[in-house]
Amino acid sequence: MTDTSDDIPGIGQYDDFHTIDWQRDIARDRMRHRYIVKKRQDSFWDLLKGAHDAWSGWVCVLLVGLFTGCVAGVIDIGASWMTDLKFGICPQAFWLNREQCCWSSNETSFDSGNCSQWYAWSEIFTSSREGFGAYVISYFFYIMWAMLFALLAASLVRMFAPYACGSGIPEIKTILSGFIIRSYLGKWTLIIKSVGIMLSVSAGLSLGKEGPMVHIASCIGNILSYLFPKYGRNEAKKREILSAAAAAGVSVAFGAPIGGVLFSLEEVSYYFPLKTLWRSFFCALIAAFILRSINPFGNEHSVLFYVEYNKPWIFFELVPFIGLGIIGVSGTGLFRGKGLLNKCVYFHPQGFIATFFIKANLWWCRFRKYSKLGQYPVTEVLIVTFITAVIAYPNPYTRMNTSELIYLLFSQCGISNQDPLCDYNRNFTDVNSAIEIAAAGPGVHKAVWLLILALAMKLVMTIFTFGMKVPCGLFIPSLALGAITGRVVGIGMEQLAYNYPKIWIFSGECSTGDDCITPGLYAMVGAAAVLGGVTRMTVSLVVIMFELTGGVRYIVPLMAAAMASKWVGDALGRQGIYDAHIALNGYPFLDSKDEFQHTTLAADVMQPKRNETLAVITQDSMTVDDIETLLKETEHNGYPVVVSKENQYLVGFVLRRDLNLALANARRIIDGITGQSLVIFTSAQPVQNLGPSPLKLKKILDMAPITVTDQTPMETVVDMFRKLGLRQTLVTHNGRLLGVITKKDVLRHVKQMDNEDPNTVLFN
Amino acid sequence: MTDTSDDIPGIGQYDDFHTIDWQRDIARDRMRHRYIVKKRQDSFWDLLKGAHDAWSGWVCVLLVGLFTGCVAGVIDIGASWMTDLKFGICPQAFWLNREQCCWSSNETSFDSGNCSQWYAWSEIFTSSREGFGAYVISYFFYIMWAMLFALLAASLVRMFAPYACGSGIPEIKTILSGFIIRSYLGKWTLIIKSVGIMLSVSAGLSLGKEGPMVHIASCIGNILSYLFPKYGRNEAKKREILSAAAAAGVSVAFGAPIGGVLFSLEEVSYYFPLKTLWRSFFCALIAAFILRSINPFGNEHSVLFYVEYNKPWIFFELVPFIGLGIIGVSGTGLFRGKGLLNKCVYFHPQGFIATFFIKANLWWCRFRKYSKLGQYPVTEVLIVTFITAVIAYPNPYTRMNTSELIYLLFSQCGISNQDPLCDYNRNFTDVNSAIEIAAAGPGVHKAVWLLILALAMKLVMTIFTFGMKVPCGLFIPSLALGAITGRVVGIGMEQLAYNYPKIWIFSGECSTGDDCITPGLYAMVGAAAVLGGVTRMTVSLVVIMFELTGGVRYIVPLMAAAMASKWVGDALGRQGIYDAHIALNGYPFLDSKDEFQHTTLAADVMQPKRNETLAVITQDSMTVDDIETLLKETEHNGYPVVVSKENQYLVGFVLRRDLNLALANARRIIDGITGQSLVIFTSAQPVQNLGPSPLKLKKILDMAPITVTDQTPMETVVDMFRKLGLRQTLVTHNGRLLGVITKKDVLRHVKQMDNEDPNTVLFN
Repeated sequence: MTDTSDDIPGIGQYDDFHTIDWQRDIARDRMRHRYIVKKRQDSFWDLLKGAHDAWSGWVCVLLVGLFTGCVAGVIDIGASWMTDLKFGICPQAFWLNREQCCWSSNETSFDSGNCSQWYAWSEIFTSSREGFGAYVISYFFYIMWAMLFALLAASLVRMFAPYACGSGIPEIKTILSGFIIRSYLGKWTLIIKSVGIMLSVSAGLSLGKEGPMVHIASCIGNILSYLFPKYGRNEAKKREILSAAAAAGVSVAFGAPIGGVLFSLEEVSYYFPLKTLWRSFFCALIAAFILRSINPFGNEHSVLFYVEYNKPWIFFELVPFIGLGIIGVSGTGLFRGKGLLNKCVYFHPQGFIATFFIKANLWWCRFRKYSKLGQYPVTEVLIVTFITAVIAYPNPYTRMNTSELIYLLFSQCGISNQDPLCDYNRNFTDVNSAIEIAAAGPGVHKAVWLLILALAMKLVMTIFTFGMKVPCGLFIPSLALGAITGRVVGIGMEQLAYNYPKIWIFSGECSTGDDCITPGLYAMVGAAAVLGGVTRMTVSLVVIMFELTGGVRYIVPLMAAAMASKWVGDALGRQGIYDAHIALNGYPFLDSKDEFQHTTLAADVMQPKRNETLAVITQDSMTVDDIETLLKETEHNGYPVVVSKENQYLVGFVLRRDLNLALANARRIIDGITGQSLVIFTSAQPVQNLGPSPLKLKKILDMAPITVTDQTPMETVVDMFRKLGLRQTLVTHNGRLLGVITKKDVLRHVKQMDNEDPNTVLFN
Repeated sequence: MTDTSDDIPGIGQYDDFHTIDWQRDIARDRMRHRYIVKKRQDSFWDLLKGAHDAWSGWVCVLLVGLFTGCVAGVIDIGASWMTDLKFGICPQAFWLNREQCCWSSNETSFDSGNCSQWYAWSEIFTSSREGFGAYVISYFFYIMWAMLFALLAASLVRMFAPYACGSGIPEIKTILSGFIIRSYLGKWTLIIKSVGIMLSVSAGLSLGKEGPMVHIASCIGNILSYLFPKYGRNEAKKREILSAAAAAGVSVAFGAPIGGVLFSLEEVSYYFPLKTLWRSFFCALIAAFILRSINPFGNEHSVLFYVEYNKPWIFFELVPFIGLGIIGVSGTGLFRGKGLLNKCVYFHPQGFIATFFIKANLWWCRFRKYSKLGQYPVTEVLIVTFITAVIAYPNPYTRMNTSELIYLLFSQCGISNQDPLCDYNRNFTDVNSAIEIAAAGPGVHKAVWLLILALAMKLVMTIFTFGMKVPCGLFIPSLALGAITGRVVGIGMEQLAYNYPKIWIFSGECSTGDDCITPGLYAMVGAAAVLGGVTRMTVSLVVIMFELTGGVRYIVPLMAAAMASKWVGDALGRQGIYDAHIALNGYPFLDSKDEFQHTTLAADVMQPKRNETLAVITQDSMTVDDIETLLKETEHNGYPVVVSKENQYLVGFVLRRDLNLALANARRIIDGITGQSLVIFTSAQPVQNLGPSPLKLKKILDMAPITVTDQTPMETVVDMFRKLGLRQTLVTHNGRLLGVITKKDVLRHVKQMDNEDPNTVLFN
């Protein structure tokens, strides 16, 4: 077998919104590989080409890692500068953010967050930082800048790259599962998403830049893959690069390379051979390393929210940790839990957050989709930004950057932490002495109320924000929601231990008077629980959390909360936010996690149904005209080739696209081909007839189509579609062809069996 | 479809040394599941049974985690007690190890490692700890105890459980890939392996207990799975429990739950759906938690080799780290590197360790297998133990427990570290001040020489030890080899920086006079490199390393070394130690990492070859006698059922085992079945003939066999065998049956294509 199928240009490519055939693409790649291996003994130039081919995968992921790291660095620096622009400016060098501005002034008292070099907007206009007038001016500038950034972001997305909105993860999951969405990962999407995410984060909207970072990295992966035809021209191979790029995206978003690889494995990717695991690992490493070298945050630790707690956790604390896991996901109101016994069990948890968030967000997105609201995306963004800014400014915990808030909530109260959250009635005598447990001061009480307000505000605003037509991610808001809940619960536990140190649950560790409860740890566990509830990650979540915080000692609490959150979440509603958005948008995604539970057979699903005839091509008795008529009259993407109309024994399968190309090519190039020419798919010489010379199309015939018998259970068929990445399979009975099952048929059947509308699936 | 196939007892089980059919087992499980779901509406008892069934997976992994944690705790405590028994005894309470003995004496000066409660053997016999006589007595007792432990371990293995030897990981990989090895995971193996590993570790042999821990955990998983028929009676489902158990094994071995899950995913498991990922995660968590609660090491940290370094690494250090990665794996002598260009490139690296170790160990194991040595396993163990003990005692770094050695090598020289390894010319004035860089004292020079001797000794002894008929693992020796190399290189780098602080590579960080190079970090990186080179792990390796040491900040160096080690290792020889031992023992393991590169077609591989006839059964024209004759004359494991001898169109597939059982059952139970009865595989009523009533066997017929066409490339066939877990596939041409490809044929073909002897594969 030689590489003849490339003779006709365009063969092996796909149209937009089509499914790819993994087996065929991978076979094509192996054939190309063998050709190169064979050829490289010919000359030195071919040897070089062979070496280039062997290394191109590694070079490509290296480049993806490099670019992803750089872009992430630029985005971090830009977003930080623009966020500070809402509060003031560095008149000497307007391109510096507050930290850099104050750093250049060499002032040591940076702790207060301000320095003489940095001018708040109120200072420029009223020359004072305090007072009612200054507050009003600051408030006004805060809102104006936010509106400006949001307007810019929304307009850019609307004008240049409509695909740049949202987090992009549902679409990337769909693309990686083998679907073509042209220009979803193109250069315009990359540019607008990068600029847009800076703007929308700076606008103070309740969103994060982590999800979009995955999309940006995937764009980089897609664009760079075109430098290497091995990947750029083969959709199945390209997805290996995209998987690695997704890992790099998470890696730079959180500074968590291993977490990124696991996220790509667990959540995003579909086809993930071990070779891709190693490449992803390398790509994520390079990206994290580049970002660390750029050092946009200017801190010493390579981890984003580095925490260090004095005390280990105590055994009893597992109860509140698991409780946080449950609170993190449970929905409010009445839910029909279908997980436990597949019967309708009503229960009424008091919790909130993840499940409530998913349901409310979906309801709102559905409302947006089917109402007039969807026609005014920019106005919607402006209104949400205005409301967010107006509510956020008065509360210091919502006014600050969400990442800073999370860091504050995770951290332990020590001598250096001056936030009201650490206003305990205790005196520090020595840096090294143990911190004693103490009663909460008025600052803590006020902070708890403000945090509860912040929780409510963030929860509501995130519901309306996620799904708007600006780039927006969910990780940081989810972490913030969980961290607030966790910190409040943690402070409650701490005060309980302070007031009742004698009860048995605290007796071992708290009796010495040390601070045995660390509220920051509760914040960390809570953050993991909500993020787990929203995205349904487990292993990758725990790894990301402990790469993010450096808290290796707290694996057990994190795992306990993640498991609790996952279980309760699955019992309440099986889908995470990404799967829910995939279903909402009708993407043709065959979930590899759900098991197909029904007893239908291949015969029930295949096309044609009874009373219809199957469109087939015979191997040596149809003319060019016959085939062109068939192509006009039917819309299938491919046609089985059979022995003859009477003996429908299967010979092979031919794709509509290939057939079109081959016929057009033959009419253009080969002499003597007319409408009456026989089209022949066998290698045998046809009987000499008097008509025009026959057209031989054996080379476009797939002689090895995957077949199943009509008695094959659909669970096996679904399994084959998933694992082998099929586009269609042929159904036979005792060797005779009965019908075809395409991926579309499978997806529709799955929807139908789950009592959903099968026509919501977007396809072709 | 109802659960009729269970009517005949024994159907669905496998014989020893057979391959399982994943699709069939999973289909069987889904059928059972649906039956339970349907039935649980009948009564409360059925509802309870349904709930039990739904939770049994989680309950089973919970139990596996609990038992694994407990067994690991017992092994750790036992091994530590017996190891100390070589040196002395606690006369007041002989069941205490040295640490516990001294701890009970309340002495504070434990740092020296001895206390008045603990009696060295020399003290008991000569009442002195020092001097020549005491040394000789200690030496003698050390050797005697070692020989005794080794004798016990080897005898126990030989007498009660021959499967308990070695690390078990190659066999577990094979079992998880779908092969049956009866009693490899049975209760006797469990008991003997647990006792044996304590003994062989205590004997001071150059081996670790981490690999066997995976085997022990898998035994626990296998035994406990019989409590839940869902898993115990279904080989495919049982492997989900075994995957989780393997994760728990690594989790308790290193205190690394996430690393355990990744090890199970990357290295051990074959079929790893996401549901198994979560279960493994849970199982590993429980096991680690139980072990931590038992706290056999008595230390505060939950990580085994907790390290804390003052200084971050500097950029230039990546060069020595990658160098360590390369040294870690490269082989000595001339190798034919086939990785880079698939041509013979000769190169001559100076490095040692992993590749050398693998090649030498394989050579020795092959020698053992084919020579008389293999007949005297106990003698061999005794000789190796004697030599190890004699060489090990004089050198303090080999005399100490290997885990202690690794911990020492990883650690930073601080005020509390009194080992000669930390004999630098510096004075500590303040605990908190930075450690200044200093010249190495005579203690360090001596320690480096001793370490190099220890490296050589451990390398040689491990080559002879791994593969002996005692339980023995490779992780700890590999880590030790790498840690020694790394520490030595690190000390070299440190002294270089001390002597030439001005050269540009050190200029940034070392100019201040602080200790900018941490030799302990080099030890850590070196350990990762050698372990990576030996086992070819990547992601799981890095995760295990940083769970083991708590060094989240050192991901980049660890990843760099792991990647370098993996690349160089793959270029020198593709197989890790486990794959090499699988090949050595001829296990039928179809590696999912290797790509099948050849252009053969299914027609080239299938049985029968030309000139042979295919043994088939017709659907309605063979008698019981015909089939029994066929069963006697052929030895196939299954037979295709076709329409008729003339029209060999495929109807289905029937297994030999099922056919035997069904015929025996029919003769016993059903009246009127004689040798002349027709056997009918269709549901149609046969034409009324005058013979005895026909035997209907449609229910044992698999109506949905997987088929491929004869033109299917073998790469696709291999891919289907891997991904769908097939036992055999049928080959057709234009619907007509041509032949069968079994897993055995595939494995033989792969071997043949790789120019290896196809008859080395152990099968049936």
